Amino acid sequence: MERKKNILDLLKKLKRLPQIVTPKDVSLILGYTGISPDSLIVDAGSGSGFLCIFLAYYCRKGKVVTYEKRSDFAKLVRKNVKLSGLRNIVVKEKDIFEGIKEKKVDLITLDMKGAEKVVENAFRALKPGGWLAVYSPYIEQVISVRGEMDRLDFTQIKTVENIVREWRVGRHTLPEVSGVIHTGWLTFARKTF
Amino acid sequence: MERKKNILDLLKKLKRLPQIVTPKDVSLILGYTGISPDSLIVDAGSGSGFLCIFLAYYCRKGKVVTYEKRSDFAKLVRKNVKLSGLRNIVVKEKDIFEGIKEKKVDLITLDMKGAEKVVENAFRALKPGGWLAVYSPYIEQVISVRGEMDRLDFTQIKTVENIVREWRVGRHTLPEVSGVIHTGWLTFARKTF
Amino acid sequence: MERKKNILDLLKKLKRLPQIVTPKDVSLILGYTGISPDSLIVDAGSGSGFLCIFLAYYCRKGKVVTYEKRSDFAKLVRKNVKLSGLRNIVVKEKDIFEGIKEKKVDLITLDMKGAEKVVENAFRALKPGGWLAVYSPYIEQVISVRGEMDRLDFTQIKTVENIVREWRVGRHTLPEVSGVIHTGWLTFARKTF
Amino acid sequence: MERKKNILDLLKKLKRLPQIVTPKDVSLILGYTGISPDSLIVDAGSGSGFLCIFLAYYCRKGKVVTYEKRSDFAKLVRKNVKLSGLRNIVVKEKDIFEGIKEKKVDLITLDMKGAEKVVENAFRALKPGGWLAVYSPYIEQVISVRGEMDRLDFTQIKTVENIVREWRVGRHTLPEVSGVIHTGWLTFARKTF
Repeated sequence: MERKKNILDLLKKLKRLPQIVTPKDVSLILGYTGISPDSLIVDAGSGSGFLCIFLAYYCRKGKVVTYEKRSDFAKLVRKNVKLSGLRNIVVKEKDIFEGIKEKKVDLITLDMKGAEKVVENAFRALKPGGWLAVYSPYIEQVISVRGEMDRLDFTQIKTVENIVREWRVGRHTLPEVSGVIHTGWLTFARKTF
Repeated sequence: MERKKNILDLLKKLKRLPQIVTPKDVSLILGYTGISPDSLIVDAGSGSGFLCIFLAYYCRKGKVVTYEKRSDFAKLVRKNVKLSGLRNIVVKEKDIFEGIKEKKVDLITLDMKGAEKVVENAFRALKPGGWLAVYSPYIEQVISVRGEMDRLDFTQIKTVENIVREWRVGRHTLPEVSGVIHTGWLTFARKTF
Repeated sequence: MERKKNILDLLKKLKRLPQIVTPKDVSLILGYTGISPDSLIVDAGSGSGFLCIFLAYYCRKGKVVTYEKRSDFAKLVRKNVKLSGLRNIVVKEKDIFEGIKEKKVDLITLDMKGAEKVVENAFRALKPGGWLAVYSPYIEQVISVRGEMDRLDFTQIKTVENIVREWRVGRHTLPEVSGVIHTGWLTFARKTF
Repeated sequence: MERKKNILDLLKKLKRLPQIVTPKDVSLILGYTGISPDSLIVDAGSGSGFLCIFLAYYCRKGKVVTYEKRSDFAKLVRKNVKLSGLRNIVVKEKDIFEGIKEKKVDLITLDMKGAEKVVENAFRALKPGGWLAVYSPYIEQVISVRGEMDRLDFTQIKTVENIVREWRVGRHTLPEVSGVIHTGWLTFARKTF
């Protein structure tokens, strides 16, 4: 990536799938986990790769391994990673349900159906003090994921909804009259030390 | 800073002033500006230094210059920066109303009364494509800041309110019944290329 | 009730149980059902009687029958109804699970655990075009209630969350910094004509 | 109005102007003032008459006087009042800036530009314990109105924002993804006894 090239400028050029984790939710993962820029990160449910590119961008000395089982999506992610110029992303065309090879991981992010089935493997792959962050559009998913987290040795478990309201400011000041109200919930959990 | 030391763990140890920009708002600055990790950042209204430490943490190859006119606060920030172990923060015991010496700045963050009086100087100090981000607890401040931004050559001007609702999940699932409803507005503006 | 006596003044004097449906939620039932002031209303889960008193107040030519199985609560409701001076409320010390005797009801309101088990009986007791309104603090309750509604001949089914944010206005204008974030969901359904 | 005719059914048939006070805001006026069903109400800024018809519907033994200076709007309101079948509404084709003739009013509602200029006259027209409720789409209007209220002998002054989020409930449960975020603020004030 060109020096001082802005990531959001870049991301506008990415080939996108309809559903992506939004900047507000992606950045909250940094804000709520505080992971180090040299972290080892595992990501699953790559979509078009926005989340893994964003994390790799701010964790330049670290590495992001992203699992994507569908080969068409994996191809898209590879294309977008190439566009980003980032060299610290590894795209694995694999189903994360079959296991996580990486060890002592600092952060695992899941944005996929059936995330609850990955929680136990994620727990094992995390280093002590490492974080799991799960993005869930539906409350039923949140409940399933929390059920799994609660029975493992996680701490600092927290589920949040992040609502960004845009405002019109000028002669008349008021919140935008209509717009996006909901994207999804983020659930955070930290492996005990 | 110790390798892979988590910034939020560290920040809990900081000596704090009562009012700090919260993690949700701090991280949104990364999410909405997408500034590069090697950015030159100017920050004013340091408070206890949370915002400048957070930015310096993720922009490790960059530099954060923080202006704080009150010597007691500047002392506190220096102490906290030292605790953080970060070496890319410069604390200036100066009033930013008197001018911004830095040139070609990538991001300027203002969390202070009278921020509207700094907008024009900020504009000049920014490089083309650079970002100004202003944190305002009151709507009157937002209106003043936007008034200044609107008459300068800024683009992508946007004011948002970022509301994070925590949820209880378990046998009964519901938003936390009471809690923090408001921290402040964030206004973003980008100097035209 | 004394002429032009205000109901909220009165309600402040009521003996209360900790949990009551709030004025914002109670009034939304009028706003979203638009029931006539001469309606026949059945209410269950009386609590301290706030909801049934409010409805009886604005439906003075109608009648509110409130079911409360616990005799201590029924006693409290009777006391509060007496304080209100309203003569169009009937307190039944009965378990609504055992059936609803009233026929051709205009509105049934449920604020109780197990409300989903009352939905079918409520459907039968309603007149065509009549409304069922269920107040649920937990999302699990909402889901159960909607499951029952969906399999019956209801129309205009709608679940809403009603959030009232208070604002400080003056030299500094901003939402109250902390406060109540969640009371409950209201689910409305109308028996088809 | 036909016995037990539902007001919302009726209101759907009204000829509408684009901007109307929504059912959630209209009903909150009952919820937060608790005015008696035999109240004398003055309303200004009739729009298409929705607010005055709703209030007249629940205050059947009372009377609503609505001021509308534009003869085309006044005509529309008269048409809609006729459709409603309600006989307790008086439409005055008059500018409320010129004064309020009614005395000992229980509730005055303002939904109009320049509402702040009516606050003092409203205060005089109210009976002790009577309420003023002002609907304001912009925060600048809220601030002006509060400025006037604060210098008069009002009590229980309160400004709220009423946000209703609709939810999808079923196989997947989540808030509606997009929709109306903002209608307006409601400011309440009560004349001291």
